[in-house]
Amino acid sequence: MSSLSFSPISWENGTLVLLDQRLLPLKKTFLQITTMEGTISAIRDMAVRGAPAIAITGIFGIALFAKGRSGSASSGEIESVLHSMKQSRPTAVNLTYALAQAGEKVQEVNNWHDIFLVWESFAKELMLNDLRDNEALGRHGVDLFDPNEETFHIITHCNTGALATAGHGTALGVIRSLRDAGKKVIVYADETRPFLQGSRLTAFEMMEEGIECYIITDGMSGWLMGSRKIDAVLVGCDRVARNGDTANKIGTYNLAIVAEAHNVPFYVCATKDSFDLKLETGASIPIEMRKEEEVTRYDFIKDVSGNIFIQPGMTSPVGARALNPSFDVTPAKYIRSFITEFGCFPPFEIPNRLKV
Amino acid sequence: MSSLSFSPISWENGTLVLLDQRLLPLKKTFLQITTMEGTISAIRDMAVRGAPAIAITGIFGIALFAKGRSGSASSGEIESVLHSMKQSRPTAVNLTYALAQAGEKVQEVNNWHDIFLVWESFAKELMLNDLRDNEALGRHGVDLFDPNEETFHIITHCNTGALATAGHGTALGVIRSLRDAGKKVIVYADETRPFLQGSRLTAFEMMEEGIECYIITDGMSGWLMGSRKIDAVLVGCDRVARNGDTANKIGTYNLAIVAEAHNVPFYVCATKDSFDLKLETGASIPIEMRKEEEVTRYDFIKDVSGNIFIQPGMTSPVGARALNPSFDVTPAKYIRSFITEFGCFPPFEIPNRLKV
Repeated sequence: MSSLSFSPISWENGTLVLLDQRLLPLKKTFLQITTMEGTISAIRDMAVRGAPAIAITGIFGIALFAKGRSGSASSGEIESVLHSMKQSRPTAVNLTYALAQAGEKVQEVNNWHDIFLVWESFAKELMLNDLRDNEALGRHGVDLFDPNEETFHIITHCNTGALATAGHGTALGVIRSLRDAGKKVIVYADETRPFLQGSRLTAFEMMEEGIECYIITDGMSGWLMGSRKIDAVLVGCDRVARNGDTANKIGTYNLAIVAEAHNVPFYVCATKDSFDLKLETGASIPIEMRKEEEVTRYDFIKDVSGNIFIQPGMTSPVGARALNPSFDVTPAKYIRSFITEFGCFPPFEIPNRLKV
Repeated sequence: MSSLSFSPISWENGTLVLLDQRLLPLKKTFLQITTMEGTISAIRDMAVRGAPAIAITGIFGIALFAKGRSGSASSGEIESVLHSMKQSRPTAVNLTYALAQAGEKVQEVNNWHDIFLVWESFAKELMLNDLRDNEALGRHGVDLFDPNEETFHIITHCNTGALATAGHGTALGVIRSLRDAGKKVIVYADETRPFLQGSRLTAFEMMEEGIECYIITDGMSGWLMGSRKIDAVLVGCDRVARNGDTANKIGTYNLAIVAEAHNVPFYVCATKDSFDLKLETGASIPIEMRKEEEVTRYDFIKDVSGNIFIQPGMTSPVGARALNPSFDVTPAKYIRSFITEFGCFPPFEIPNRLKV
C-alpha cells in the first residue's frame, strides 16, 4: 500500500505497529503499541509525525482504549477519551477532525466492544482514503508543471512523504507523481532544524525511490534560488485558515518569503482535512512551543554493534536559552496555489472550493 | 585586550597560541602552533574562523615560516609563502589584503630573520588596529539606535564577536557597545548551520558577558519578526563589493530577505579591510564550497571524564548527497546601512567613503 517497501503504520491483530521515525535513517525499528497512552506518547515524542499520519495513529489509539474496556460506555467517558487524544499535539487540524468524526460515529453505540469495532474500521478507512486522496493530489500537482519540460528542480521542507501520510505523500506525492509521469526530478531537501525531518526522512524516502536529492541547510535556499533555476517550492501543511494562511513546520514561512523574492512558485499541498474554515486567518492557529533542548542539544542516533541508542550531544553552552516554535504561519499572499485531491486553486478560492 | 576573560589568539615567545573554537562551548583548549602548515590547517579546519581573526592568524603563520628559516630570502620564496597562505580560505578578503601588505613591507628586506621581525611586528599591529577599529565601529553603531529607547531586540547570524576578531567584535561589538551605553539588549542568535557558530560561539560569548540571548534555528527568524518587535538585524561580513553586495556566512541572504519583508533594518558591520572595490558586484566574489559531510553528519563534541573528543554522528542516510556553500551574497538593496569604524552609510556611498 505504501510507496515504501514497508508500512510505517499498520494494524496487526489488534496491535498498532508504528515505525519509530526517531531512529531513521539508521534503523527501521517498529514499536508495538497496545494502549492509548502509548499512542499519545508516540505522537508527542514524534515517533510518528506528519498531520495525516498523526490523525490515523490517533484513531487507532482510541480504538486501543475501547479494546481494553468492556461493558457499557457513557458519553462522558467517550468525550474524555477523545479529549485526551486531541491534546497530544495542537497545531495540525487533521486529528481534530478525525476525532470529531469518531465521536459522531459512536453516538448510537454504547458498549465498548462495538465502539472498538467502529473505531478500528474507521482508522482503516482513514488510511485507505488518505492514500487515495494523496494519489489524486499528486496527479493534480503534475498539471502545474510545464509538460514540455523534461527536468524539474524542486525545493521541499520537512517530510511530507509516505512517512507522514498513509502512503504516497502530499508534497513528496507530487514529486512521485512527476517521476511516474516520466519526468526527471531533482529534489533539494531543507534539512529542517531542529528535528531534521528533511535530512533524516525526506532524504531516506528519496533514496529508497532512487530520486536524485541534495540536502541543504535551512539557510541555503536563497543561495540556491540565486544560483540555479528552481521550478517550484512544494510543502505540506498542518492547518489552513479560511483566507489561505497556512501553518506548517517551522522554517516554511522563511522559505516562502525567499521564494517570493526570486519569483519561484510556492505551492502548498493539502488534503481536505487540512482546511479549517472556522478560522478567518492564520492568527488564530495555535503554535506548539516545544522544549528548548530540541534546539540547544542534538540527540543523534548511534549504532554500536547493532545496538541503537540515542546519544545526547550539546550544541550550545550548558544553560543556554532557546526558542522552539514547532510551526510558523505563511500568509496567503506568498502561496501561488494549493494542490489538493480535488484540484489546484489559489487561496482566495478556498471558501468556494471547500463548500460541502 | 579581548572582551573575553582570555585571548583566543596570542603570541607567546614565538609560538602562536590559538583557542580551538571547534571544541567550544564544551572546553577551552589551546593549540600551540609553531609552523605555517599548522596555521593553514587551523584556518582550513576552522579551529579559528571569522574574517578578521583569519587575517591576523595568517600573518602570524607566515611569521612562523620566516622564523624557521635563516639566511637570505628570494622574492620568489616570499611570493610562494604568501600564495600558500592566501589559498587557505578564499571568500574573505581581509587575509588577502594583509598578505599584500606583508609582501610590501619586506620588499627591501632580504634575510629571513629580518622578515620574521617585520611580519611578527605587523601581526601584532593588525591585532591592535582591529581591536581599535572594532571599538570605533561599535560606537558608531550605537548611533543608529533610538537614544530614547531602553531595550533593543536584535537578531544576529554566525559569530562576529571576540572569537572572530582581535577582541571586541563587529556585530557583537555593536551589541557590546549598546550594553556599555546603558541599554538592555536581547539577542536572538541564529544557530547558523551547518557549523553552528551561533549556538556554539555567539551564545557562549553572550553568556560570558551576561547578555540575554536566545538561540533560534535559521528557519525561525520570520516567525520571530512576526511575533515580537525586532529592532535590527546585525551581521558581519567576509567581503563587500563596490556596489555594496556583501558575502557573509551562508544563511545571511535568507535573513536579509526576511528582514526586508518585515521592514526590520538590516545592518552589515564591516571594517575597512572587508571592502573590495576592485569587484563591481557580488557576482565576482568566490564562494567556498565545503565538504558535504559538514551537512550530512554532525560531529559533536563529547566530554567523557574530562577527555574531549569529536564524536561523529549521522544526520542523514549513508550515501545521502548535500550542497555546502559556506557563504552567500546579500544584494546591496537589502542593506539599510554599513556600520564601520569611520561611520555609518548606505551602500551607494561606498565609493566616496572608501576613497583613500
